[in-house]
Amino acid sequence: MSSFFEIENKKEKARLGKCYTSHGVFKTPCFIPDATLGAVKTLSIEDLHSINMQIVLGNTYHLMIRPGMEVLEKSLGLHKFMNWDGPILTDSGGFQVFSLGKIRKITEEGAIFRDHLSGNKILLTPEKSIQMQKVIGSDIMMVLDECVASDSSYSYFKESIDLTYRWAKRSLTEARNGKIVNNPDQKVFGIVQGGKYDDLREYSLSKITSLDFDGFAIGGVSVGESREDKFKVMNLIGDKLPEDKPRYLMGLGYPDEIIEGVKSGIDIFDCVIPTRNARHGQIFCNLKFNSLDDYSYDVINIRNSKYRFDFSPLDENCDCYTCRNHTKSYLRHLKSVSDILGMKLLTLHNLNFYMRLMEEIRRYLA
Amino acid sequence: MSSFFEIENKKEKARLGKCYTSHGVFKTPCFIPDATLGAVKTLSIEDLHSINMQIVLGNTYHLMIRPGMEVLEKSLGLHKFMNWDGPILTDSGGFQVFSLGKIRKITEEGAIFRDHLSGNKILLTPEKSIQMQKVIGSDIMMVLDECVASDSSYSYFKESIDLTYRWAKRSLTEARNGKIVNNPDQKVFGIVQGGKYDDLREYSLSKITSLDFDGFAIGGVSVGESREDKFKVMNLIGDKLPEDKPRYLMGLGYPDEIIEGVKSGIDIFDCVIPTRNARHGQIFCNLKFNSLDDYSYDVINIRNSKYRFDFSPLDENCDCYTCRNHTKSYLRHLKSVSDILGMKLLTLHNLNFYMRLMEEIRRYLA
Repeated sequence: MSSFFEIENKKEKARLGKCYTSHGVFKTPCFIPDATLGAVKTLSIEDLHSINMQIVLGNTYHLMIRPGMEVLEKSLGLHKFMNWDGPILTDSGGFQVFSLGKIRKITEEGAIFRDHLSGNKILLTPEKSIQMQKVIGSDIMMVLDECVASDSSYSYFKESIDLTYRWAKRSLTEARNGKIVNNPDQKVFGIVQGGKYDDLREYSLSKITSLDFDGFAIGGVSVGESREDKFKVMNLIGDKLPEDKPRYLMGLGYPDEIIEGVKSGIDIFDCVIPTRNARHGQIFCNLKFNSLDDYSYDVINIRNSKYRFDFSPLDENCDCYTCRNHTKSYLRHLKSVSDILGMKLLTLHNLNFYMRLMEEIRRYLA
Repeated sequence: MSSFFEIENKKEKARLGKCYTSHGVFKTPCFIPDATLGAVKTLSIEDLHSINMQIVLGNTYHLMIRPGMEVLEKSLGLHKFMNWDGPILTDSGGFQVFSLGKIRKITEEGAIFRDHLSGNKILLTPEKSIQMQKVIGSDIMMVLDECVASDSSYSYFKESIDLTYRWAKRSLTEARNGKIVNNPDQKVFGIVQGGKYDDLREYSLSKITSLDFDGFAIGGVSVGESREDKFKVMNLIGDKLPEDKPRYLMGLGYPDEIIEGVKSGIDIFDCVIPTRNARHGQIFCNLKFNSLDDYSYDVINIRNSKYRFDFSPLDENCDCYTCRNHTKSYLRHLKSVSDILGMKLLTLHNLNFYMRLMEEIRRYLA
């Protein structure tokens, strides 16, 4: 049996690798789109295959509320439920508890909150998060961590790191307790926090990496942080994460931010940007990639009136269904009449842009 | 060159036939889905091909407003604009003027209204409608008619029939004036009106069929009419329309209404029901068809909580992508979280149901 993660090549800090799961291999550096509620919004599984999507991300918090764990249990996990047979990574639910949940309270035991739909009071503990991720049956589970507001005090961050560490230990124990639900081969990743404080990032790193996780993530980089702070954190921490395990930067980002992450030694990225921005008409195109330091791309808004009579595709060099079949003029029209097909065609294109970007990066690192 | 319409077989009044257009043949009896604004809502062209869609319907009124005739002119017609190379039928715009337009006034010249989006005052004449349909480049154009409210008086209906007749003559003249824009082979259909008054239907029939149209439609059957009145009109008029030309019942209907129409001798149907109802979760399934008088099907609402743990497809015997890949439980979930993918998967299924229904009808008539 091969190990979970293999590094095939390196250029400076940047790594080319492969992750092996029981639902297939994914090549790194890798971008993961959000399949928040069991679907990458607007796209069918066939659409995902058409752009060589390797792995998708499910949100435990959202899935817990709808369809609920009972449904996922009876459907034998999320893979079967959504009919996706590739790898799935799930978050812990923590991020949404902090961004969507109401009246939250953090105790040693876990996070108490009211869900954003029904208002039901829920206690999410590290153990419960792992138990739910076992029901979901994801290939990579994330531990519950406290997502601290970026403007919190130094002392709050420090205490939080200790709590997150104790939660991480409990999560790992739960993950490795031998209880198999819907997937006998689930990996579990720890998360380094610490905000923008260099010494706290180092402190969190030393605590979390002392635990025997299958991979490590950097958290708290996507939310309300400046671009400068994000880059500082990745550069500080990226390459200090264990060499032999995959490194995951949570919730990032724009193409140039991803490239910056790769340069810092990160292997895995996820973000709502390509999908959410597509639904708002913001399109990535015209990628020219020579190296991690020499590249360019365009960002256009398809709603712009200058595309009204533009009968060329979004991107002459893109091989996605949208670019092979439709013009900017038509896509602008669908967007302006809010047609659902338009959202799908634009989402497909943007995700294919990200897939091509990652492919170019991997080719460069080979 | 073959003629436009060929009857291959008959069973009582019901006819099996073929319509030849420069964008391909479509077999009748035939159902046409609405591609209102240049897209069958939620579905790509690839999706339409996957369920053997023969022909789609464009709404001249909507296309006039968005994207506008200037865009359609520069894109060399709707086929190229939406990248659909099969046949297209367009309505005259009249129906939407009467249902969506504001402050409308009917004069001998045409219909004056304010469009429902910008409030711009527009005069739609029979000639302008045909001119726009020439820009659209549809394979079948419809004449502008007055769509009279079903509760109007007998005398209003009678006057309207005379006006609609004069408009029909002007439309035909415009259609046959030799001016080719984006499609050299456009057919044009006249429309029989008359509401629920038998003698007025006969009167309208005799006037309209005295003109040399390529086909004939029955109008005013979809809007605010009782099921009883609809059936009465089709049975009265259906088989009195010229034998050698295609017959089109506008805006109808549910599967059993379509079967009733076929029995009355109608060849072509269009309706928003399969697509709009799909978006609301109403699903057609489990078709059992032996003959035009011996058939059954189910209508279910996928939002029903009883499907929460139902891991079977919508329809065991359906070959659409949705039924081959997804369970009721998953579709119910997507519907309950208002996911766009759900709307697409349900739309695809419902349209495939209609396609299978028409296929069964044609097999029976062969």
